[in-house]
Amino acid sequence: MAAATCSADALATMFGGNTTNAMGAASLICDQLNSVATRFTDTTYAVDSTYLLFSAYLVFSMQLGFAMLCAGSVRAKNTMNIMLTNVLDAAAGGLFYYLFGFAFAFGTPSNGFIGKHNFALKDIPSSDFDYSYFLYQWAFAIAAAGITSGSIAERTQFVAYLIYSAFLTGFVYPVVSHWFWSVDGWASASNLDDLFLGSGVIDFAGSGVVHMVGGIAGLYGALIEGPRIGRFDHTGRSVALRGHSASLVVLGTFLLWFGWYGFNPGSFTKILSPYESGNYYGQWSAVGRTAVTTTLAGCTAALTTLFGKRMISGHWNVTDVCNGLLGGFAAITAGCSVVDPWAAIICGFVAACVLTGCNMLAEKFKYDDPLEAAQLHGGCGAWGIIFTALFARKKYVNEVYPGKPDRPYGLFMGGGGKLLAAHVIQILVIFGFVSATMGPLFLILRKLKLLRISAEDETAGMDMTRHGGFAYVYHDEGSDDPKLVGGGLPMRKIEPASSATLP
Amino acid sequence: MAAATCSADALATMFGGNTTNAMGAASLICDQLNSVATRFTDTTYAVDSTYLLFSAYLVFSMQLGFAMLCAGSVRAKNTMNIMLTNVLDAAAGGLFYYLFGFAFAFGTPSNGFIGKHNFALKDIPSSDFDYSYFLYQWAFAIAAAGITSGSIAERTQFVAYLIYSAFLTGFVYPVVSHWFWSVDGWASASNLDDLFLGSGVIDFAGSGVVHMVGGIAGLYGALIEGPRIGRFDHTGRSVALRGHSASLVVLGTFLLWFGWYGFNPGSFTKILSPYESGNYYGQWSAVGRTAVTTTLAGCTAALTTLFGKRMISGHWNVTDVCNGLLGGFAAITAGCSVVDPWAAIICGFVAACVLTGCNMLAEKFKYDDPLEAAQLHGGCGAWGIIFTALFARKKYVNEVYPGKPDRPYGLFMGGGGKLLAAHVIQILVIFGFVSATMGPLFLILRKLKLLRISAEDETAGMDMTRHGGFAYVYHDEGSDDPKLVGGGLPMRKIEPASSATLP
Amino acid sequence: MAAATCSADALATMFGGNTTNAMGAASLICDQLNSVATRFTDTTYAVDSTYLLFSAYLVFSMQLGFAMLCAGSVRAKNTMNIMLTNVLDAAAGGLFYYLFGFAFAFGTPSNGFIGKHNFALKDIPSSDFDYSYFLYQWAFAIAAAGITSGSIAERTQFVAYLIYSAFLTGFVYPVVSHWFWSVDGWASASNLDDLFLGSGVIDFAGSGVVHMVGGIAGLYGALIEGPRIGRFDHTGRSVALRGHSASLVVLGTFLLWFGWYGFNPGSFTKILSPYESGNYYGQWSAVGRTAVTTTLAGCTAALTTLFGKRMISGHWNVTDVCNGLLGGFAAITAGCSVVDPWAAIICGFVAACVLTGCNMLAEKFKYDDPLEAAQLHGGCGAWGIIFTALFARKKYVNEVYPGKPDRPYGLFMGGGGKLLAAHVIQILVIFGFVSATMGPLFLILRKLKLLRISAEDETAGMDMTRHGGFAYVYHDEGSDDPKLVGGGLPMRKIEPASSATLP
Repeated sequence: MAAATCSADALATMFGGNTTNAMGAASLICDQLNSVATRFTDTTYAVDSTYLLFSAYLVFSMQLGFAMLCAGSVRAKNTMNIMLTNVLDAAAGGLFYYLFGFAFAFGTPSNGFIGKHNFALKDIPSSDFDYSYFLYQWAFAIAAAGITSGSIAERTQFVAYLIYSAFLTGFVYPVVSHWFWSVDGWASASNLDDLFLGSGVIDFAGSGVVHMVGGIAGLYGALIEGPRIGRFDHTGRSVALRGHSASLVVLGTFLLWFGWYGFNPGSFTKILSPYESGNYYGQWSAVGRTAVTTTLAGCTAALTTLFGKRMISGHWNVTDVCNGLLGGFAAITAGCSVVDPWAAIICGFVAACVLTGCNMLAEKFKYDDPLEAAQLHGGCGAWGIIFTALFARKKYVNEVYPGKPDRPYGLFMGGGGKLLAAHVIQILVIFGFVSATMGPLFLILRKLKLLRISAEDETAGMDMTRHGGFAYVYHDEGSDDPKLVGGGLPMRKIEPASSATLP
Repeated sequence: MAAATCSADALATMFGGNTTNAMGAASLICDQLNSVATRFTDTTYAVDSTYLLFSAYLVFSMQLGFAMLCAGSVRAKNTMNIMLTNVLDAAAGGLFYYLFGFAFAFGTPSNGFIGKHNFALKDIPSSDFDYSYFLYQWAFAIAAAGITSGSIAERTQFVAYLIYSAFLTGFVYPVVSHWFWSVDGWASASNLDDLFLGSGVIDFAGSGVVHMVGGIAGLYGALIEGPRIGRFDHTGRSVALRGHSASLVVLGTFLLWFGWYGFNPGSFTKILSPYESGNYYGQWSAVGRTAVTTTLAGCTAALTTLFGKRMISGHWNVTDVCNGLLGGFAAITAGCSVVDPWAAIICGFVAACVLTGCNMLAEKFKYDDPLEAAQLHGGCGAWGIIFTALFARKKYVNEVYPGKPDRPYGLFMGGGGKLLAAHVIQILVIFGFVSATMGPLFLILRKLKLLRISAEDETAGMDMTRHGGFAYVYHDEGSDDPKLVGGGLPMRKIEPASSATLP
Repeated sequence: MAAATCSADALATMFGGNTTNAMGAASLICDQLNSVATRFTDTTYAVDSTYLLFSAYLVFSMQLGFAMLCAGSVRAKNTMNIMLTNVLDAAAGGLFYYLFGFAFAFGTPSNGFIGKHNFALKDIPSSDFDYSYFLYQWAFAIAAAGITSGSIAERTQFVAYLIYSAFLTGFVYPVVSHWFWSVDGWASASNLDDLFLGSGVIDFAGSGVVHMVGGIAGLYGALIEGPRIGRFDHTGRSVALRGHSASLVVLGTFLLWFGWYGFNPGSFTKILSPYESGNYYGQWSAVGRTAVTTTLAGCTAALTTLFGKRMISGHWNVTDVCNGLLGGFAAITAGCSVVDPWAAIICGFVAACVLTGCNMLAEKFKYDDPLEAAQLHGGCGAWGIIFTALFARKKYVNEVYPGKPDRPYGLFMGGGGKLLAAHVIQILVIFGFVSATMGPLFLILRKLKLLRISAEDETAGMDMTRHGGFAYVYHDEGSDDPKLVGGGLPMRKIEPASSATLP
């Protein structure tokens, strides 16, 4: 490899010993060869950084996707509220993740449970991390908070949102990501010195770390708050509280799909790494394969949902198809880099069934989650973790997680049950840790009467009572003559509550 | 070139024969130089893959653009329906293109007419294709189906849509793309052993392969279905059935513009190829020039339409400008890589005139195409094919399609008429093949009464009758007290038809 | 460095003089090493072009962001109008910037005040500029025009818009960008032969060049036009004329955030430049740091605005938070590449205060700017220029603007007051030049009665009177039986004015 240094002394000896000419020739040749090695290092940093930065931008665009999906999925009277939470997930997340979230997650060396270096980006860039890595991880952190906001939409006090969002982005999520993703996390697949169960957990882009964390946090929030008013009628029958705009739902879904190409393939964080040097096959192929598995899982889940719901409900439903699609993505996220494309189709098919099943359970237990976030990210995320332990292929596992040739891989691919054991434990541990942190937090908030808004405010809508007005104004407030209003829609003018009545 | 291998034996001889020292020096030097060559190969794969993957993501974002453009261009009562078709174009397209579409299109060696390898990505990655190439081509395939869905919007049965979409993405489009883009396609400009008419067809990013195919398929669909109810009144006068949201139209148009930077410049599929090695000029310049020609053609077509429509209709119309812009893009797509920026301005100007003319013809013949898809993608696409044969520059043609120094180029640039002849034949062949496949398909669907919905359903809107409800809900279903509804709009509650009445 | 050429003659001498073998060995080695250097040059061009092109696409997506932000911020009756201006900013800007804008801005050698080469991309690509550089700068130019259109929204004749937009994109903005960004601009930080005040102005991505120019142009437009009808009531009390869709506002804001990652980090235009060769630290780190400072400034400004407005108005306002966020971005744009992340937090905090203060001043002086564009881009942009002069760090300044080791840097960082002096002059000069060009232009347009629409038209809305109809149609024009309309909203049908009454 060119990376090996060229020794001018050694070469000069071969050229005929310590003469001026021999030394000169050797120096000239070695200097140039060594500078070539240096330039390759520079080139690799530039290419990998370009790849990682643009992937980070794509992941960031998912925040816009969440905002639009959430907005379209709630009633018009709560649109401002949920969009504000999405903007603030990104904004507050930026500060908290900069100040300590990143340090908790990746500040190695650690004790395996929580990082303790790099607060406020101290000592960054280093040979381990550059700024682009921070940016990429920040975009992930805010996604987890975004998931949770969907579960508790339309009935949560804004102050409660600010508190749980900060706690989730600043502490809960970083700790979990440390366990599974940091090189010294106790269950990380990259912790080669001490692989958990001899295997470690392969949660490549975070079906568990991101989606289950966000989904289970949402589960506790929604459970402790209870259903929205009118979601189940007096007889206990389920009443659909339809979102106000399917266009926004489709817009948000497509943006999430777009952003998922940063989320999954981007999780390699580097692209210029050959697997068979000088051949066509390298990490760039694995990145492409990851994009393909992601696509196929989502596509299959969408189609499965389309025909499944057609059989159940009798119509072709676009919002259900959107949720099915996202369920497929949430499921493939753990194993996207280590499974074959055909396996991704199985992953998506089962994910759609899991989501449908979870939704039926939710109805049965009168669990109200406006975005189906716990079902989708929690349920399909958990399936994705199991799926990976069944279908991870040996060759891919060794390429993506190098340095440990005989590590376990998928049970159905002949890799034994160790990976599955590790993954079952991952599900339990995430469920336990999020339960032990977010559960009490929501309970305390309820105790302090900071969690749920009043019934009057809920019926009137949060936009009017908390956010200064309705999100849409199709009539013309400035006009005295209503006849001149261009296509105006009649809409009552409601003054926002005075600040005195606000929490 | 460093690509040539360094022979240690030969070098040792020059160093003074077969001594240990000479052999050692030669080996050391040659090993390093050879590993440098290998690292360049790796670097090139990584850079080109990064370029191609992000281009593919951009092309995918066009599907979101189509969804928003289509949604805004139809009436509110059919919004769910058309958005669902756009989601499914991507989803069903993903499965079909994976299973056989890609194999039909690029599975070489072939007989020139249809590929027959690489089904379900078998033997991928290879030295020819990596996963990223498949992903890029999939994003193209679903664009063709998206075009067609616009032509037959607001009146087509959902089952008919599922059938024609699968047929188009899985067979018709792949076969056409094989002819013109695969290295052994019978009319491909890269089929150097047997160039059609000594020239081959230069349809760089698919004015013909994508836009004409989608547009002509739409033409047959819309012709065979007939106009929407109310589109032409009792006296035959044209009545505009305006789309329900200009905001969505502009959103969709800008997203398509954004994505076209993946569609046209991305079609190089590689960026790290020098034209004059060590100089500043290479494929990266051609990629940039392609982005510039694309931009200028669209801009010119938009301005031409603005002033043209102002003269005709007396107002400044944003949706017409959007369509004009897209017509300019559809036209430049064939020649974007081989023409000068000034020529792109001509291309855009004529494209706007072609679109206006086609729209006049459509009115005259009572042809109803809600998205103007046949006029825009078919008409402007055909003009783009002719334009390329007139303005393709020799230097660019030889750089973009290397290996055949004396090939024909644009007629007006002194390159003779052979390219024009090939391009006229391309138009005829595409027209013929799409007519022979999609025409009968739509006729059979009509015969089986699977094509058009009933007049009652069409008047009521497809969202209510097929898709479970209206796309927009501005009132509050869960509230008992309408006075408390925040800014609610009065809207009648219509129950979706029961499943018994559905096809 | 490998860039130094390998001389076969010199090497042959060292190998033992002018023998055939020595010459052969030296040639073989030097040929290979020289071709390696050439391949690195090619690789660098490809990587930098990929980086710049995708950054340009991101900046372009800001135009979509502006369109959605503007659309949502105006009343429904003017939606078509403002979206059309945004589409045309891009379209007309494309032609004008191609024909002469780019030449005015970057056509070196110049006299320091205005460029005079490269009209219509003549002699491009050159060793200085490739097509990708033009595309990137075009995307910047149209952003400036987009800013201004917000200030004068809802009351400006379309013809006036066409005129000022062409003048701004084609002349005013290019000249200002020449001064501060071209290598021979009189105040450019890259004009190493003749640094203004020994320092030059560090306006990295254009808080002054783009945002102040656009904002001050808007200030003059809005001042000369006067407030919209009804914006201040008979007693002079301010009346909010709320935008019609908060969803579009949030959509636009997130798209601008997304695009800003092209705007700020992309302004390096190259990424493959090592600062400490062979080490992990290079321009790729500076690019990442720039993305981080940009993010933190926006996040801090958003949070500051959230709590500030909560204290002032009593509610949590999403559109105010969006504007605060954008104000933070506009401010950090000048110094994003040369300040530390902690300083970006200060920048964002003050930016939010500046924006709130400017808005209070605007209310007091009855200045009506529907998008707060003058306050946001003008006010926060000016603060960003000052901020840079206070907090620019020595190390970063020397890395980003190399070749002049002892240049001034931030006052608070120990760099003296020269940079601050230069930056104060920048503010004055931009204010003066835009005042001297755009002020008279708007006055002349008013004189010619081409500037403001009539009171009747303003009350009726511009979409009806100028653009062929209302942007939203929720009812069904084609139906005879209103009972069958799916969820239709009642809306009066208003015919657009005939062309005879149009300007």
